[in-house]
Amino acid sequence: MDRNAVTKKILFTKVSKGMKWSGIAQRIGQSKEWVTAACLGQMTFSKSQAEVAQELFALTDEEAAWLQIVPYKGSLDTAVPTDPLIYRWYEIVNVYGMTIKELIHEEFGDGIMSAIDFSMDIRRESDPKGDRVNVVLSGKFLPYKVY
Amino acid sequence: MDRNAVTKKILFTKVSKGMKWSGIAQRIGQSKEWVTAACLGQMTFSKSQAEVAQELFALTDEEAAWLQIVPYKGSLDTAVPTDPLIYRWYEIVNVYGMTIKELIHEEFGDGIMSAIDFSMDIRRESDPKGDRVNVVLSGKFLPYKVY
Amino acid sequence: MDRNAVTKKILFTKVSKGMKWSGIAQRIGQSKEWVTAACLGQMTFSKSQAEVAQELFALTDEEAAWLQIVPYKGSLDTAVPTDPLIYRWYEIVNVYGMTIKELIHEEFGDGIMSAIDFSMDIRRESDPKGDRVNVVLSGKFLPYKVY
Amino acid sequence: MDRNAVTKKILFTKVSKGMKWSGIAQRIGQSKEWVTAACLGQMTFSKSQAEVAQELFALTDEEAAWLQIVPYKGSLDTAVPTDPLIYRWYEIVNVYGMTIKELIHEEFGDGIMSAIDFSMDIRRESDPKGDRVNVVLSGKFLPYKVY
Amino acid sequence: MDRNAVTKKILFTKVSKGMKWSGIAQRIGQSKEWVTAACLGQMTFSKSQAEVAQELFALTDEEAAWLQIVPYKGSLDTAVPTDPLIYRWYEIVNVYGMTIKELIHEEFGDGIMSAIDFSMDIRRESDPKGDRVNVVLSGKFLPYKVY
Amino acid sequence: MDRNAVTKKILFTKVSKGMKWSGIAQRIGQSKEWVTAACLGQMTFSKSQAEVAQELFALTDEEAAWLQIVPYKGSLDTAVPTDPLIYRWYEIVNVYGMTIKELIHEEFGDGIMSAIDFSMDIRRESDPKGDRVNVVLSGKFLPYKVY
Amino acid sequence: MDRNAVTKKILFTKVSKGMKWSGIAQRIGQSKEWVTAACLGQMTFSKSQAEVAQELFALTDEEAAWLQIVPYKGSLDTAVPTDPLIYRWYEIVNVYGMTIKELIHEEFGDGIMSAIDFSMDIRRESDPKGDRVNVVLSGKFLPYKVY
Amino acid sequence: MDRNAVTKKILFTKVSKGMKWSGIAQRIGQSKEWVTAACLGQMTFSKSQAEVAQELFALTDEEAAWLQIVPYKGSLDTAVPTDPLIYRWYEIVNVYGMTIKELIHEEFGDGIMSAIDFSMDIRRESDPKGDRVNVVLSGKFLPYKVY
Amino acid sequence: MDRNAVTKKILFTKVSKGMKWSGIAQRIGQSKEWVTAACLGQMTFSKSQAEVAQELFALTDEEAAWLQIVPYKGSLDTAVPTDPLIYRWYEIVNVYGMTIKELIHEEFGDGIMSAIDFSMDIRRESDPKGDRVNVVLSGKFLPYKVY
Amino acid sequence: MDRNAVTKKILFTKVSKGMKWSGIAQRIGQSKEWVTAACLGQMTFSKSQAEVAQELFALTDEEAAWLQIVPYKGSLDTAVPTDPLIYRWYEIVNVYGMTIKELIHEEFGDGIMSAIDFSMDIRRESDPKGDRVNVVLSGKFLPYKVY
Repeated sequence: MDRNAVTKKILFTKVSKGMKWSGIAQRIGQSKEWVTAACLGQMTFSKSQAEVAQELFALTDEEAAWLQIVPYKGSLDTAVPTDPLIYRWYEIVNVYGMTIKELIHEEFGDGIMSAIDFSMDIRRESDPKGDRVNVVLSGKFLPYKVY
Repeated sequence: MDRNAVTKKILFTKVSKGMKWSGIAQRIGQSKEWVTAACLGQMTFSKSQAEVAQELFALTDEEAAWLQIVPYKGSLDTAVPTDPLIYRWYEIVNVYGMTIKELIHEEFGDGIMSAIDFSMDIRRESDPKGDRVNVVLSGKFLPYKVY
Repeated sequence: MDRNAVTKKILFTKVSKGMKWSGIAQRIGQSKEWVTAACLGQMTFSKSQAEVAQELFALTDEEAAWLQIVPYKGSLDTAVPTDPLIYRWYEIVNVYGMTIKELIHEEFGDGIMSAIDFSMDIRRESDPKGDRVNVVLSGKFLPYKVY
Repeated sequence: MDRNAVTKKILFTKVSKGMKWSGIAQRIGQSKEWVTAACLGQMTFSKSQAEVAQELFALTDEEAAWLQIVPYKGSLDTAVPTDPLIYRWYEIVNVYGMTIKELIHEEFGDGIMSAIDFSMDIRRESDPKGDRVNVVLSGKFLPYKVY
Repeated sequence: MDRNAVTKKILFTKVSKGMKWSGIAQRIGQSKEWVTAACLGQMTFSKSQAEVAQELFALTDEEAAWLQIVPYKGSLDTAVPTDPLIYRWYEIVNVYGMTIKELIHEEFGDGIMSAIDFSMDIRRESDPKGDRVNVVLSGKFLPYKVY
Repeated sequence: MDRNAVTKKILFTKVSKGMKWSGIAQRIGQSKEWVTAACLGQMTFSKSQAEVAQELFALTDEEAAWLQIVPYKGSLDTAVPTDPLIYRWYEIVNVYGMTIKELIHEEFGDGIMSAIDFSMDIRRESDPKGDRVNVVLSGKFLPYKVY
Repeated sequence: MDRNAVTKKILFTKVSKGMKWSGIAQRIGQSKEWVTAACLGQMTFSKSQAEVAQELFALTDEEAAWLQIVPYKGSLDTAVPTDPLIYRWYEIVNVYGMTIKELIHEEFGDGIMSAIDFSMDIRRESDPKGDRVNVVLSGKFLPYKVY
Repeated sequence: MDRNAVTKKILFTKVSKGMKWSGIAQRIGQSKEWVTAACLGQMTFSKSQAEVAQELFALTDEEAAWLQIVPYKGSLDTAVPTDPLIYRWYEIVNVYGMTIKELIHEEFGDGIMSAIDFSMDIRRESDPKGDRVNVVLSGKFLPYKVY
Repeated sequence: MDRNAVTKKILFTKVSKGMKWSGIAQRIGQSKEWVTAACLGQMTFSKSQAEVAQELFALTDEEAAWLQIVPYKGSLDTAVPTDPLIYRWYEIVNVYGMTIKELIHEEFGDGIMSAIDFSMDIRRESDPKGDRVNVVLSGKFLPYKVY
Repeated sequence: MDRNAVTKKILFTKVSKGMKWSGIAQRIGQSKEWVTAACLGQMTFSKSQAEVAQELFALTDEEAAWLQIVPYKGSLDTAVPTDPLIYRWYEIVNVYGMTIKELIHEEFGDGIMSAIDFSMDIRRESDPKGDRVNVVLSGKFLPYKVY
């Protein structure tokens, strides 16, 4: 057994019980973005979060223990994702990557936008021409150290 | 000569004259995100936008003509980008890809967030613990057609 | 259990019972192209479509539930497909890719042909020199947004 | 000098003179699909076609000679194309590849749809919800030989 | 169960019973080249051929059914084969590929040698300096269509 | 200057003068298959062969010297070739690779068919249903050494 | 001209003048590790640092300007480096990667060791059994944000 | 059963019993870095070390035997690691690789820093601006042999 | 069951019984290099060799039969091996490959050193500065055929 | 200018003047294996060796200076070499890699055979059945450090 097996059990239980990520997030007490990532095996649960998850998904003690171990992260099978929805995000990085780099450097100088001290918010944006997906990404700017 | 050569000339001239993307965008009359992408060879200029660019970057008529031709897009040299700033975006896709997919499908059903009918806004978010990069992505949701 | 397991069960049952995709499609009430893709794990069934499939392929309730979950798409094992029939399609993209790009841009300007708001029709075209495969692809044109 | 150099000169001249593929095709006397592919270095010109091209693009005798030599085909730089328009076609192969294979085999048995004895027709399809790209592909069915 | 499982059972039975491909081919009534490819999961059996195979390899009805379904072809695990015997063939394509292309085009013009309407004959060629493998490949020439 | 530059000059001169590989081969006094491979930079010329080539292609002394140096072989740009004609050969290796391996081993035991002590003969095979490309490959069988 | 061209000129001048990285670093006033990385095109010079570099390497004003632009980082040609010295570092990541991950997580919890707020110190460690390379890496620990 | 199975059992037992690498290392009597690498299947246990491990993790005799066999090393699934913590190390090799090479060669001449006669020490470095990960790598310098 | 399963059983039995390759080789009556390669699934056993192996490793009749079938060769999981010992050999090919090519061609002309009519001898070479691994490779030179 | 340019000049001069590696090695005073590797850009010349090379190949002072700089090593264009002679060496690593690993570990325990403290000797071995290439590789054994 490893974390991956726990992820599969969570997904399976979620489908069987007809649960939603937003509802699960409310129970665990964090944003739906963080909770979904955590349930998909990308984040580490605290002890109390794991207890809620254990109850929600009928996990064994051992399975709940795995949730509290830092996982090996990475949710894609291939360097270039094949799923159309995820590919569009890869395409954004491909087409706009240099643009993002230029604009962040122009505003902040040399450094990066952290993907660790980072949060994400995904919501529906009503639009008469067809609703839009609105995503806000917020990452701390980390300047390169000169020494 | 091809579009790539025009991109190099634009970058070179920008460095030499000490211009900024925000200033260039104001002159061309679109957002700094779109204009930077266009100058980096990822978007197509209209005739009037190309004329402004021609003047700003001292382009020949032929170079200005290339700006109005739809380019072959893609700004990265490798499938997995090596530059740390751009890599962090690839990491977001890698670590959060399945999360984004789950949440958009939960809200909208099967389909994608368009990377074409799409806009992006990058700005500085003041924060006492260190300023943050705030990025808003907005893409139209396109449902899969059933036929 | 995951969607992949349901796909295998469907294929297995289809072979055992000697069913045809065209017949399955008639029962489910959509085109044979969409229904085949859906049965192969690339599309999402509605509740009523899933009920028909459940009956046709003797699926359990849980298996029928998986059909209604948006799947991770992508039906090829390798970036360049090894099967000769599918490779010919990849070859068309490889040999004619730039041609398609040039002609669509000449007619529509910068943008893409949607692979989401998309339909496909495959049929036999009688020809005295040997019958032909006739495929009609229809995708909405999506222009790049300028902002 | 090689065929690639001739392709670049043709593209360059086309941009400079403001020509269109449809007009070029009319002059050369074949479909715009074949002519564009040929001008992009994927097809072989006959002697008379090369003479028209020589005049249209002000080619030297040697450049016109290269057009009549069978070229090394393949118009993409990477196995998975980065340009969004061409990628959508690759996505169709990826998502629908197995579907296409199943349906052609159901209708014709084991074999392939030729990409050599093949033609393509790209046109605009008016649609009140937004115009569509309509593409017809026609390839001879070639059954596998049993011996 | 899938075709791959049937291939493994055939191989296993062949080893256990000490059968030879040439003998199996005689029973099935086609060349040893075609029959071996078919048993290895690359070709489709007719109903009567499958019945012979069923008897020879003690297959179940279901296993015999799979033999009549068009398989997903491709018998190598990696793009560049690791087995020395198969690699030598890949090396021939690598070293002589352009030569083959030049000579076929010189004789036939633009087009390909079909790998579908194709047959192969492998035999021993006695030679005092060491016997040789003699392979005859015969493929229909298919000219590129101009339209 | 390197061998590649000499290959380009040979190709260029051949196109300009309208020569054919069969004629060149006759002049050099070897088969058209070997001579084409040699001219394309895959084989090593003897001193006298190089002298004929020097005259035919108007090479400098230095260029003729390069023809006598053993070259770095390999005529394809990518592991999987993109050109349709050469791809069909790669497809033969992919689809029939295991078949070839099984049949050679059944006849000869463990070992390989040499790609070095090897010859090839490509010719037209008349056929009322469409002419065929007939290729004979002959390679010495080399058994694995047991020690 | 781009940053890469400036890097080449710096390397060339350094070789010609017989300079050492430690001496260059002293002149620029930062550690030899940071200065070498900067000269190799991986870091951004401040205005005053660029002025020193301009004098040291006889750069033009434009070349000195490029040093102050944030570069596209990444100093290796291939995903797996071929140079033995650099490969040993890749091997350390490969063999000890999971070990490093386990030990940092045991001490700090989920997060990363920054490669941006990061410094490195390379020195000779005398050892009677053969001198050793001693490298100290220091990176800020960044905990994953929960939100 | 192979070494990989033993590694999984060790990890599983460690999680179940709530052990720490530092404690395990103390029991085995080597540094926590070496012991973690060994438990993760990268190093070879001596007989007495294997006996301690057998007791700690309740291994069978056979499992303990595997620990004493030299393993096939390499702890990453992909050439470029997907886990953010390990990726940062790969990024260091990518961004600073040439810098490390230049500085070691300047100090020692041509050769490498050994990854075999090598040790590593990972510890927490207190810092008011946020604690840091401090890693000391020590590898013997091996000069290239001239012969 | 396939050859791979037999290889695993042999390795497992060897570990359990504490056998050595040199002892196994003596029993089978060939060099330790050939016997190890054969036991690892790279070579084909004769009938009598297989009988010895069957006894040594307690194989079933069927398992012993598999040893006499020519295997699909190749013992590495990745194109570039991750294990440090095997990588050093890949590094030798990478760093010295062109050197080996130049020197063999200078001595023998165009051709190859056979990896089939090939033997290898690995032994310890005592050396006061540290013992060395001494490997002798002997392969028949095969000249390229001119025809 | 870089080391690569010097390598090309050396090769070019060697061809023009009809020199042999063995003669060049005698002049430089090291083995032909080391000297060839050095001339091909894989090793570092001492000052006096560079002076001999400067005279032999008519190098400029600057070119001679480059020979004394430690080069970025790696002489192959692709991870899997395409040249048949070099591929046979890669095949040896592929087919016999695990065998070499097992035998060295059986004799020496865990560690590697150095590719740095390493020498190679290539010579002709007369054999009535056809001459053989005899290669002796000698590398220091380096045991893994336990700490």
